[in-house]
Amino acid sequence: MIVTLLTDFGTADYFVGAMKGAVLSADPSARLVDITHDIPPHDIEAAAFTLLAAFESFPAGTVHLAVVDPGVGSERRPVAVQSREHLFVGPDNGVFGHVYERLKTFRVFHLTNADYFRRDASATFHGRDIFAPVAGALSRGVRADALGPVVTDAVRLALAAPRRLDDDTLEASVIHIDRFGNLITNITPRDLPGEAIGRGARLRIGAREIKSFRRFFAEDDGAAPGEPFAIWGSAGLLEIAIYRDSAARLLNARRGQSIVVNGKS
Amino acid sequence: MIVTLLTDFGTADYFVGAMKGAVLSADPSARLVDITHDIPPHDIEAAAFTLLAAFESFPAGTVHLAVVDPGVGSERRPVAVQSREHLFVGPDNGVFGHVYERLKTFRVFHLTNADYFRRDASATFHGRDIFAPVAGALSRGVRADALGPVVTDAVRLALAAPRRLDDDTLEASVIHIDRFGNLITNITPRDLPGEAIGRGARLRIGAREIKSFRRFFAEDDGAAPGEPFAIWGSAGLLEIAIYRDSAARLLNARRGQSIVVNGKS
Amino acid sequence: MIVTLLTDFGTADYFVGAMKGAVLSADPSARLVDITHDIPPHDIEAAAFTLLAAFESFPAGTVHLAVVDPGVGSERRPVAVQSREHLFVGPDNGVFGHVYERLKTFRVFHLTNADYFRRDASATFHGRDIFAPVAGALSRGVRADALGPVVTDAVRLALAAPRRLDDDTLEASVIHIDRFGNLITNITPRDLPGEAIGRGARLRIGAREIKSFRRFFAEDDGAAPGEPFAIWGSAGLLEIAIYRDSAARLLNARRGQSIVVNGKS
Repeated sequence: MIVTLLTDFGTADYFVGAMKGAVLSADPSARLVDITHDIPPHDIEAAAFTLLAAFESFPAGTVHLAVVDPGVGSERRPVAVQSREHLFVGPDNGVFGHVYERLKTFRVFHLTNADYFRRDASATFHGRDIFAPVAGALSRGVRADALGPVVTDAVRLALAAPRRLDDDTLEASVIHIDRFGNLITNITPRDLPGEAIGRGARLRIGAREIKSFRRFFAEDDGAAPGEPFAIWGSAGLLEIAIYRDSAARLLNARRGQSIVVNGKS
Repeated sequence: MIVTLLTDFGTADYFVGAMKGAVLSADPSARLVDITHDIPPHDIEAAAFTLLAAFESFPAGTVHLAVVDPGVGSERRPVAVQSREHLFVGPDNGVFGHVYERLKTFRVFHLTNADYFRRDASATFHGRDIFAPVAGALSRGVRADALGPVVTDAVRLALAAPRRLDDDTLEASVIHIDRFGNLITNITPRDLPGEAIGRGARLRIGAREIKSFRRFFAEDDGAAPGEPFAIWGSAGLLEIAIYRDSAARLLNARRGQSIVVNGKS
Repeated sequence: MIVTLLTDFGTADYFVGAMKGAVLSADPSARLVDITHDIPPHDIEAAAFTLLAAFESFPAGTVHLAVVDPGVGSERRPVAVQSREHLFVGPDNGVFGHVYERLKTFRVFHLTNADYFRRDASATFHGRDIFAPVAGALSRGVRADALGPVVTDAVRLALAAPRRLDDDTLEASVIHIDRFGNLITNITPRDLPGEAIGRGARLRIGAREIKSFRRFFAEDDGAAPGEPFAIWGSAGLLEIAIYRDSAARLLNARRGQSIVVNGKS
């Protein structure tokens, strides 16, 4: 099967190469696809967002190996996640937090069955010694429930989904800022349906109110240049953007910042 | 089939991962090969040169997906290019300009058949939603002429080929400067055959005249160190180089600069 | 078969793409895996270490293509290395120096049979024109002994293995400094068995003596913070590290630096 890789290991060292070899040793017919190895070191939230934005493009049966693991060697559990279409392998530290919100149903397994690990697994390189061999095992057809017991308290991300304050109001968050300075929120079309937008939904971020919803970046909605607007982004989430400028800079926004949505007023 | 990828998306974001997933969703047996994702943002000419220098190494049947697309969402056409041995998919903005000069015969198709796009293609991410699915379709055997009508006015690059001034004289250009400071020109062996070189062809760039043609960089032709020379480079184009130094810096040269070739005097 | 790639070409230019195409032209069914292309330019020792640390993860039959080749075009020989499980292709300049120490038995062949090169191989880009086609040939099943005569004086690395000074003493070296500042030595478990460590082996680097051996980085051995310790690293070599700090900086260490091991006193 296809096995994707997402890490914070960078591409200059041997780490990624060793992990790839370990996947292929467990399943010589696995087909490796790099998502990225340039997640900022130890940035679990950035990894969680990037995985969310990439995984749905892949065909059913793909195994996604995500290793951003500041707690390697500590008590955090190694896990595999099985959903109807996709499989995921990595540490139970929130890296799958956004994926859990998107998946309809899924089960999480604690990786305890050392039969699927590298012999003499090191304490320092679980990417190569635990996660990669397990991803290879899933790729060659091992069932997820052979890997260990079910986990019912998998680690979620605090900001993975908006919080409903009342019938009319959501408290959402900026979960990612892309390299153009667009603010990606955790608001999905389920949270803010087209009818609510049609009825004049508004977003408030800091002291700023945003009423304009665009279909594409260059759409002319009569607003002044430099005015922020909302737009459905390619990750399937609402984004706050400024045409040809950085919303992050102009709104002085940061990841985790709160956004209040008045949806049906 | 093999599908190569060349973009200016960088490797830190989810963009390349999502594109790869989209190719594989259209053709699960496609074999992905990265050429580069580090084209300077929006630099169509750099993409065109890199594609030219890489594509001929690949076996017949390869699909080359090239997405450097500053005009995404505008009126620029998405196209596929079919030649005897290779297929290309990307925006019609000049990114195939150098390839057109190298190919003997080819046809260009405007991608209008949305059956081969992602459902609900976004206005902002044609790489994932149009180009990648079409590359996957070609990879699994869809014929290029099923994708849309033939285009006869595909966008060329101004500097793709030298211009003949008279029987004796060509006006050529620097089309790329590599990281060693070598100047890659648009001069092919067809433009400047070995006999012309044997008869004493000369190049003029700025106020500088170059008479020395070397077969390899360290060749001793009696010239002083720091003297520029011409050499056939591995992209199949004439380069201007200085041994162990940067011709770009020492000649104060830039991309697009004119080179006059006196070929038969 | 699987063909890995390790170069100092970076990923911004066409070089790696052209090499990949050349492997696939020689063996269209080869499966390419990038180890890294970010070896510091011309740094043979860094390439040799990275290859050592990655190659053993790969399944038997893998072909490893390693091109860090400051001497391209000079008299250095292009070679292929055949061991029981792995094949290697690259320049005979020390890039396989660490691998030679790890392999039990191997043979080295001088690549002289131009039947397996690109036609009209350039003098400047052996990566594409000699090494990649030969790797593709090995991948499709060509026997290494068809490539040229056996070499018995392959270039080794000066610091590949420790030197025994007397029954009790080894002179070892720092062969790599990783991005966390850990010092990777050339000491293997064969050089320093567990019993020697149990009997109180000590390392001396510069004026500093190291007596502490840890099993994992965070192990509490009673030492003060900032105290260096030795640990078996994931490349199978002894490392000198400081918990949550850079041993390279605090010990003012550099690659090539001598380490004296008193093993059995």
